[in-house]
Amino acid sequence: MSLEINIPDVKAEVEAAFAEYEAALVSNDVETLDRLFLHAAHTVRYGVGENLYGYTEIAAFRAARSPFNLERTLERTLITTYGRDMATAWTLFRRPSLVDKVGRQSQVWMRTPDGWRVVAAHVSLMAESAATSP
Amino acid sequence: MSLEINIPDVKAEVEAAFAEYEAALVSNDVETLDRLFLHAAHTVRYGVGENLYGYTEIAAFRAARSPFNLERTLERTLITTYGRDMATAWTLFRRPSLVDKVGRQSQVWMRTPDGWRVVAAHVSLMAESAATSP
Repeated sequence: MSLEINIPDVKAEVEAAFAEYEAALVSNDVETLDRLFLHAAHTVRYGVGENLYGYTEIAAFRAARSPFNLERTLERTLITTYGRDMATAWTLFRRPSLVDKVGRQSQVWMRTPDGWRVVAAHVSLMAESAATSP
Repeated sequence: MSLEINIPDVKAEVEAAFAEYEAALVSNDVETLDRLFLHAAHTVRYGVGENLYGYTEIAAFRAARSPFNLERTLERTLITTYGRDMATAWTLFRRPSLVDKVGRQSQVWMRTPDGWRVVAAHVSLMAESAATSP
């Protein structure tokens, strides 16, 4: 048996956690961003310009991040849950400052006793013109 | 209780699946690549130049892909398992043809009755110079 996909109440929980993260991101609420990433050595985040292994590296990056030009809109957000304890959230994003580029953010979430936490993430920018190539 | 992280026999299974995928990728074994992605509408893959939603789009991309310059070496591969049924594999990669860029590949794997399958993936290239910025 495979894990059950998209159990409605589980998906609603992850959607709420995802929305909390997004609100924290665009307002540079570093405390919330730090809380929502699992505080573990195996937490990993590939960003637009950095590859961070372990929660310590991720928190250091957050603390040094510019708080400007963070606003963005999401497109084609796909949240999928696997059983009751794991989920993925893949989404495109656009910023006014990102001309001819589309952002891609992917996150893996895990349920913990303290709530849902991101255990792995990958953010990148893609040239818009590339989107039409095969 | 959170899911148990890195149960040894589960991790060994995922490492074997990951190695099978990597061998298929560098040899352009499209049949194996297709088999290792879950055949589902919620399977998602962000590639270097394309954003693919659903297995059908992913298979079409594979069929059209150039079979040249696929060889690569992996660095800092981090495979983490969550319970017995879910895993993440985040890795950097380098290709001789990628000058001053490092590749990043992230995959989410799920156990199925037919074996482990990729349910979500994200591949991107990062400018090497960016790696030293905060």
